[in-house]
Amino acid sequence: MNNIFASLPEDLGAEVFEDIVRSDTVRIERIVSRGHSSPVDGWYDQDENEWVMVLQGSGRLLFETGREVNLGAGDCINIPAHTRHKVDWTDPDRPTIWLAVFYR
Amino acid sequence: MNNIFASLPEDLGAEVFEDIVRSDTVRIERIVSRGHSSPVDGWYDQDENEWVMVLQGSGRLLFETGREVNLGAGDCINIPAHTRHKVDWTDPDRPTIWLAVFYR
Repeated sequence: MNNIFASLPEDLGAEVFEDIVRSDTVRIERIVSRGHSSPVDGWYDQDENEWVMVLQGSGRLLFETGREVNLGAGDCINIPAHTRHKVDWTDPDRPTIWLAVFYR
Repeated sequence: MNNIFASLPEDLGAEVFEDIVRSDTVRIERIVSRGHSSPVDGWYDQDENEWVMVLQGSGRLLFETGREVNLGAGDCINIPAHTRHKVDWTDPDRPTIWLAVFYR
């Protein structure tokens, strides 16, 4: 991928997750959503830490604690491993592009 | 840092490097340049791999092989460890914001 805003998936019937970099210790992912929330049931409960930024569009994270975080372009947050959370809402009117770095 | 475009350094007399995330295996950095090239002498020759993206502004990388790569907003490139390179040029008229992920 040479430009993070290019080659967006045409079919956004589901969220699209694409690896940009994958090594033993780090994974950099582009996630494109449009009106999705995820996971469908329950919470993400990840073995890795995740640093995530919205590059375009907007979304809202919900944590099991009840904390809500709205994210627009440039907003970023660090989610320690096993911090239960979900993507509660993303803009239904245009693609939201996330950059996520998963690391140990 | 809650927004990657916010709290830009006022003094851009030199490039400004800020850690966003630092763990044993990964370092996520914001770099803000304005008309700088770097390093001043010679080449970057890094022990870590670097994935880097321009978020705002524009810059040009030069590799020891002679390859030049112009980067604008959203453009990204993976630079394997010990690939000698430099930042040859950045826009003198406005800050260029880079996101760099260094990893093993």
